[in-house]
Amino acid sequence: MIIDIHGHTNAPPSLYAYKSGLLASRGAHGKGNPGITEEAMSNAVKNHLANNMDKVGTDIQFLSPRPFQLMHSEKPEKIVQWWVQANNDAIASSVKLAPTRYRGVAGLPQCAGVPITNTFEEIDRCMEMGFVGIMINPDPYEGSGTPSPGLGDEYWYPLYEKMVALDIPALIHSASCKDPWDTYSNYFITTETRTIISMVASQTFKAFPGLKIIVSHGGGAVPYQIGRYRAFFGRHFEGSGGFDAELKKFYFDTVLYNPEAIELLARTVGSDRCMFGTENPGTGSYKDPSSGLMLDDLKPVIEGISSLTDADKKNIFEDVPKKVFPRFKV
Amino acid sequence: MIIDIHGHTNAPPSLYAYKSGLLASRGAHGKGNPGITEEAMSNAVKNHLANNMDKVGTDIQFLSPRPFQLMHSEKPEKIVQWWVQANNDAIASSVKLAPTRYRGVAGLPQCAGVPITNTFEEIDRCMEMGFVGIMINPDPYEGSGTPSPGLGDEYWYPLYEKMVALDIPALIHSASCKDPWDTYSNYFITTETRTIISMVASQTFKAFPGLKIIVSHGGGAVPYQIGRYRAFFGRHFEGSGGFDAELKKFYFDTVLYNPEAIELLARTVGSDRCMFGTENPGTGSYKDPSSGLMLDDLKPVIEGISSLTDADKKNIFEDVPKKVFPRFKV
Amino acid sequence: MIIDIHGHTNAPPSLYAYKSGLLASRGAHGKGNPGITEEAMSNAVKNHLANNMDKVGTDIQFLSPRPFQLMHSEKPEKIVQWWVQANNDAIASSVKLAPTRYRGVAGLPQCAGVPITNTFEEIDRCMEMGFVGIMINPDPYEGSGTPSPGLGDEYWYPLYEKMVALDIPALIHSASCKDPWDTYSNYFITTETRTIISMVASQTFKAFPGLKIIVSHGGGAVPYQIGRYRAFFGRHFEGSGGFDAELKKFYFDTVLYNPEAIELLARTVGSDRCMFGTENPGTGSYKDPSSGLMLDDLKPVIEGISSLTDADKKNIFEDVPKKVFPRFKV
Amino acid sequence: MIIDIHGHTNAPPSLYAYKSGLLASRGAHGKGNPGITEEAMSNAVKNHLANNMDKVGTDIQFLSPRPFQLMHSEKPEKIVQWWVQANNDAIASSVKLAPTRYRGVAGLPQCAGVPITNTFEEIDRCMEMGFVGIMINPDPYEGSGTPSPGLGDEYWYPLYEKMVALDIPALIHSASCKDPWDTYSNYFITTETRTIISMVASQTFKAFPGLKIIVSHGGGAVPYQIGRYRAFFGRHFEGSGGFDAELKKFYFDTVLYNPEAIELLARTVGSDRCMFGTENPGTGSYKDPSSGLMLDDLKPVIEGISSLTDADKKNIFEDVPKKVFPRFKV
Amino acid sequence: MIIDIHGHTNAPPSLYAYKSGLLASRGAHGKGNPGITEEAMSNAVKNHLANNMDKVGTDIQFLSPRPFQLMHSEKPEKIVQWWVQANNDAIASSVKLAPTRYRGVAGLPQCAGVPITNTFEEIDRCMEMGFVGIMINPDPYEGSGTPSPGLGDEYWYPLYEKMVALDIPALIHSASCKDPWDTYSNYFITTETRTIISMVASQTFKAFPGLKIIVSHGGGAVPYQIGRYRAFFGRHFEGSGGFDAELKKFYFDTVLYNPEAIELLARTVGSDRCMFGTENPGTGSYKDPSSGLMLDDLKPVIEGISSLTDADKKNIFEDVPKKVFPRFKV
Amino acid sequence: MIIDIHGHTNAPPSLYAYKSGLLASRGAHGKGNPGITEEAMSNAVKNHLANNMDKVGTDIQFLSPRPFQLMHSEKPEKIVQWWVQANNDAIASSVKLAPTRYRGVAGLPQCAGVPITNTFEEIDRCMEMGFVGIMINPDPYEGSGTPSPGLGDEYWYPLYEKMVALDIPALIHSASCKDPWDTYSNYFITTETRTIISMVASQTFKAFPGLKIIVSHGGGAVPYQIGRYRAFFGRHFEGSGGFDAELKKFYFDTVLYNPEAIELLARTVGSDRCMFGTENPGTGSYKDPSSGLMLDDLKPVIEGISSLTDADKKNIFEDVPKKVFPRFKV
Repeated sequence: MIIDIHGHTNAPPSLYAYKSGLLASRGAHGKGNPGITEEAMSNAVKNHLANNMDKVGTDIQFLSPRPFQLMHSEKPEKIVQWWVQANNDAIASSVKLAPTRYRGVAGLPQCAGVPITNTFEEIDRCMEMGFVGIMINPDPYEGSGTPSPGLGDEYWYPLYEKMVALDIPALIHSASCKDPWDTYSNYFITTETRTIISMVASQTFKAFPGLKIIVSHGGGAVPYQIGRYRAFFGRHFEGSGGFDAELKKFYFDTVLYNPEAIELLARTVGSDRCMFGTENPGTGSYKDPSSGLMLDDLKPVIEGISSLTDADKKNIFEDVPKKVFPRFKV
Repeated sequence: MIIDIHGHTNAPPSLYAYKSGLLASRGAHGKGNPGITEEAMSNAVKNHLANNMDKVGTDIQFLSPRPFQLMHSEKPEKIVQWWVQANNDAIASSVKLAPTRYRGVAGLPQCAGVPITNTFEEIDRCMEMGFVGIMINPDPYEGSGTPSPGLGDEYWYPLYEKMVALDIPALIHSASCKDPWDTYSNYFITTETRTIISMVASQTFKAFPGLKIIVSHGGGAVPYQIGRYRAFFGRHFEGSGGFDAELKKFYFDTVLYNPEAIELLARTVGSDRCMFGTENPGTGSYKDPSSGLMLDDLKPVIEGISSLTDADKKNIFEDVPKKVFPRFKV
Repeated sequence: MIIDIHGHTNAPPSLYAYKSGLLASRGAHGKGNPGITEEAMSNAVKNHLANNMDKVGTDIQFLSPRPFQLMHSEKPEKIVQWWVQANNDAIASSVKLAPTRYRGVAGLPQCAGVPITNTFEEIDRCMEMGFVGIMINPDPYEGSGTPSPGLGDEYWYPLYEKMVALDIPALIHSASCKDPWDTYSNYFITTETRTIISMVASQTFKAFPGLKIIVSHGGGAVPYQIGRYRAFFGRHFEGSGGFDAELKKFYFDTVLYNPEAIELLARTVGSDRCMFGTENPGTGSYKDPSSGLMLDDLKPVIEGISSLTDADKKNIFEDVPKKVFPRFKV
Repeated sequence: MIIDIHGHTNAPPSLYAYKSGLLASRGAHGKGNPGITEEAMSNAVKNHLANNMDKVGTDIQFLSPRPFQLMHSEKPEKIVQWWVQANNDAIASSVKLAPTRYRGVAGLPQCAGVPITNTFEEIDRCMEMGFVGIMINPDPYEGSGTPSPGLGDEYWYPLYEKMVALDIPALIHSASCKDPWDTYSNYFITTETRTIISMVASQTFKAFPGLKIIVSHGGGAVPYQIGRYRAFFGRHFEGSGGFDAELKKFYFDTVLYNPEAIELLARTVGSDRCMFGTENPGTGSYKDPSSGLMLDDLKPVIEGISSLTDADKKNIFEDVPKKVFPRFKV
Repeated sequence: MIIDIHGHTNAPPSLYAYKSGLLASRGAHGKGNPGITEEAMSNAVKNHLANNMDKVGTDIQFLSPRPFQLMHSEKPEKIVQWWVQANNDAIASSVKLAPTRYRGVAGLPQCAGVPITNTFEEIDRCMEMGFVGIMINPDPYEGSGTPSPGLGDEYWYPLYEKMVALDIPALIHSASCKDPWDTYSNYFITTETRTIISMVASQTFKAFPGLKIIVSHGGGAVPYQIGRYRAFFGRHFEGSGGFDAELKKFYFDTVLYNPEAIELLARTVGSDRCMFGTENPGTGSYKDPSSGLMLDDLKPVIEGISSLTDADKKNIFEDVPKKVFPRFKV
Repeated sequence: MIIDIHGHTNAPPSLYAYKSGLLASRGAHGKGNPGITEEAMSNAVKNHLANNMDKVGTDIQFLSPRPFQLMHSEKPEKIVQWWVQANNDAIASSVKLAPTRYRGVAGLPQCAGVPITNTFEEIDRCMEMGFVGIMINPDPYEGSGTPSPGLGDEYWYPLYEKMVALDIPALIHSASCKDPWDTYSNYFITTETRTIISMVASQTFKAFPGLKIIVSHGGGAVPYQIGRYRAFFGRHFEGSGGFDAELKKFYFDTVLYNPEAIELLARTVGSDRCMFGTENPGTGSYKDPSSGLMLDDLKPVIEGISSLTDADKKNIFEDVPKKVFPRFKV
């Protein structure tokens, strides 16, 4: 079974037109709704199943909102809340239309500068709708200059408690990036790296042993720069296996569009910490002009990595996802 | 002939989904395009002609971008530029599809904190596409706290020079409003009032006698509060007719959804300074539960004002628009 | 009986020289006092009675501090407190000198960024001195860029509770305006409009049914732009009469210096919501060069409005003021 | 002859009421004027001559505006300009009323953040009116948190050039102080000390050998803390006499309300650098409860300092003022 | 016995290299330590005893951290804490190496914007190590533009309570100065002056009669400008002796590098409020080129002041220090 | 020949104590100097040669200042200038003491917010002293919240012109990091990644074909995340080889403390773009508890990578450094 844990909403344009209206009115028109017709939604799902799953052999894909659309740094908070709800609703619609092919991963209505508990109502609502996990934006300020508390900070503890209590994992994935000299895509990598460093430094997993954190895009820069962190943290954790032992408390997806990186990831953290993810369709939906292959068609890539055993591959494609997402029942 | 000089883009949701993407990517994906299909555009136009023009007896409507969608305060400047171009392109498409029923009024890619000359290239482009006027946002900061130079300030002079040189009028119309305690709709009124006060105080029309400024929504609060301004400015302009003489250098539209206000406007500034406008569909597209009438169906309202002569009404519906918009040829 | 509910302090220059000293010393000299001599005060009152009341036929005028002098945005708070006290004291002196001709409306020592309860001691002091109402500045930041909570926000609730408990009405009237592109006089209109919109949106009168709010200057832009608000709020209050029903929960004064506006006001909200007000002497104290009349001499203006019945006029001149200000006993 | 070089405006309260109005209107009413009656001005002068000069034996007093009233940090700049002009005009009126007893020292319309050349027009105007010097505020931000360029910075060079060209001296005297934890009176001392340190560090007198700077209030803290500056600057100026030689390039007044300090000042800088000043009436106009003497009655104090020779005293009372203020002709 | 109550750390460069590392790493390396070798420390002490104490006849010197090195305005707080601890440890080492010649005065880990109670743990630690007093920085923002609460503000009350409870005096001494137009050395004087003014204005000694505050450098500008403060505060404290009585509630050191100032100080506040201090080595360690004497060799200076009696001198050199520092036992 | 292009200053603690003093005095003491004794310097060099070069077989090491000590975000600019000069001087001393073993790479006195041309004088000075390259900090704001222009921005063009004119390469290496939720060490990686992305996006090498940029620490996250950038940039550069071709215009060092990463780097960019670097002693100077090896002992690591040919290794150890640093003559 091929489970792709990292996919995003497929929805017709009216979903995003709705966002545009919320930003224009700043909520003055009330919540309203995206006005997605059943037909449009159904077409979007059919098209997605055909082109982004069947064609590449994905059995089931976990859908979360398109992260870079989440506008967590906008005000007032209510438009962020409404917008995230609309995204989760669109995901719920997709799951309903193709219940054997999709599962939902809830976007959170995180708002810069307010308590993380403001997201709890939406988490509960999504769990009731059958979602299997959540997605955390480590920087709700979206790179606009105010520093967000690191993931190891106590700011996040109420959320971690809730995650452990409900046994739901979280995908770490930043949103847009307002730094004029950066891009959202690169900011993903920066914030993922910082998430790992912050949580290791704070020993968050000691406080929350049951916490499940999935770092997107193969863990940012960490597997490549691991020597640096081994040295930096080495002195602190010598007795217990050093930085490597700490790193293996996280989970990772395989959203890395080159085979060497996926191999390095698996070798570094072990296949029991890796899950198949493609973010298809997304940044990687690009046809390499030399090979003629889509960069996000990662199933054959992984199958072709000779250093991975069959058990490793089964871990990645099926077993780890099933273990990490206990709410996912086939 | 019934000319409605104040209408806004009719376009399918993918136009606004495009805006949503620009904000999410902050331009990292390059300009791209809204991907509006011919069919979708054609449907939008047909629907608009039927419901918002034919039904109410409008012969021709001047279309400008939906102001509250213009996001002038966003960064980087390029996404504002691209977005305004996409809006003007959508308007040009509408005009092309129904050349006897529409004319374009160009949105400007105004960007908070940069010179107004950055809008000139787009003005030229739109004039080449046959547009008949432009729309000015008096506060590109969109109420976010930094004060924008008043319309009487020299900041705007290069634009006024260009307007006079090209003989194009401008509709004053603010965009969104980020003040947490205000709404975009009310901010229209505030900024229109301030526009008049600023330009009268600065004696802008003395520097630019040929300048044509159309203040939307019946001139904000000014006609109602005119006594206040008569007193305030009285001492300065006694010799030349006082505030009333100054006020009659502006033009006004009739986007006021109650007959008493339209009557007050016409009585105050004279019908030779008024133009028919409905902003239909827009805020006024609301059916009054008592009368069962749409509030923005203003043609019968104006026709029913007994204090207006037939010449006054012809002024409003046809003659003044034709005089003010010389680029408009039937 | 002609009751003018909207007049401001008449006091000799030393009152304002005192303010000047407070600002210069920032309170370092302690409270001190304005040093108004009895003779100077008496002359000021005599002069005011003769020129601003007897000449125009006003029987009694309610005096509040000159709003634009209130300096609510200055620091430290103590100088704001002292200054407002000095104003209320000057008013109390006037009332004492002419007890049949004046009543006091208390200025509040509002200070930007501090709780509204800091004004309570002064309210109590003024009520003990026989004042009949209070004046609220909806923007103690005085247009300096930081947004003040809208009048519908819970920030104001403690004050509303106190007003209801003591049965005192409040005149809404902003102070100075530090926005470099606006004027205090125009800012009155902006803030009055926003007050109505904010309170209607928040349904403040549902929470405080006994609350009495008097919007100065004829309600800002609202009566003229009422169609816009009917449409905007229409959907929310359909069952209960729409925006018009909400608007009629406010009171208004007639400080509009043109007859058409006063007529529009009365027609829109009903004479049972209007009170005679002139702000004489003030902005309107200007002699119209064409008519030779003072713009703020509003008694003959109102008397000359043919659409108003005698009962309407009695409402405006006498009955509504008496009802709204129960502490006012002839 | 007893020349008091440090006195401030004597003017009736309407001068300060005018300031109050400028701040309230932020200039929206235009320049206007303080409306000082001839009678009021004449009374003020008579009273001042009698109580603050004749009674203490002052022959002539140099008047500058009350510094703490100068509001240099307020916006817009025009109200600062108008206010300073009104002050200088009031001084000119005093001089006209008692031409043998007064001379004017011009306040400057300094405005935080704008070039110092904006003060030149007013300097020229005052010189034409016969003023003998100017007063410089070393911190037009008035302690509000933004640092002002030190007096040694090139920001001030155009003013120094003008001073040298016109041969006019400047009294260093700060204005109000908006720091919530300081007072204007103490801030005088701080800014005077900093003026000396900044100009010594920058070697300003090397660039402008003819420049005449009079540091108010006996030079702030410098004469008392001179050892500290001798050490701090010692290494730099060893060859040329050290800090003491630098210090003796400034002039000082005797506005120190205790004899020991005046003695220390004269001993430290020499009587040829000291000028009689009382700032009477001002902070020092306080009757010492033990001695029964007014603290600012400094003539007998200086006369009683035994370490000063008669030549020293003549220096202080007459000769140095005459030398420093060449525009002063008896 | 000659007790110099105002000396600072003598320590080898590695102490300051440690600070440099904390600032570079912002604490990322953990606390670490300055790595001062015993030999280096011992050499530093030997050298200091020989050159800065024996040579000038000082029997015992009280050591506090070099104030201008304290970096109280830096972030994160932990590096300030670590750095202050390292300084106090270095002082403790010095005392241990020469227990008859030194005593410690603890630097406080004050951090801009956090409660003063965050310093208590370090105070307790130092008292356990035998320190005899503490040093307070009146401006932990170090002149960077944010105003620090005056020493009379309740912000400091918890510290005053602790000081009284433990009977420990505090030396007032600011640190670095980030104002681009000021210097740390001059800022000492400014902040000392402000400390006195703030505490007198707030009547702090009424709330804490047992509080012992030692104002460094002879009290800033106050003794010289005392007339100004006598007048300013006179009215408030007439009954109880005026400003002079208030001033005599403080203690002062003699860190004034000229005899006239020391004499003025003693005359003004009395020898029972003065303590010998040299800050040697420090700013005053400069050889006057004319006299050939070190400016901070103050013992002979004080001995040579003829207006001081032997009892006065004993007060200054020995008796007052012993009384003020009860934890100091010979 | 083993050339280590990435080493940093070896200097005694007094160098860093000097920095500490500059920060404390903010430059008030003048430039001064670190007071490094010849003996101390000589010992530091001997120790470094023995332990950090001879022991690991390095023939020659290029020394630049310790980046995280560079304090580029501090003010005033002069202390940054002085501090960088002192660092470069210390490096020049090392080179002088061991001319066959060291070469200098100049630190730049970059100051946040000022033109990059302010560094030119120091570049010239260092080139005259025989330095072979420079080091660029891509974020002189040191992560304090203000975004620095990306390396592709025209802000840097004058520097690039100079580099090309003088034929000197630059090592990209950020300094400290003031973001409270990040560390300097991790910020290196972030800024290196952003450098590559910014320059590729701006096509900087098209404008400066001869420019030589060496990205430290193996290129941040780029080689690992290359698939992401291939997709992101793919469309733009298809004709010319895509992102890979662009990436190969940069140079890289091998400061990656794990063999897999070095192998991935070389495989990705080619050995002709890689240079041996260890940053020894530095972050990597940590003994792996399992292997007992120092993490920064990279010569045997590289020698042991079987996929690298001898020619590859010679490239890395010797040939590429010699080509990139033409000023380096053995």
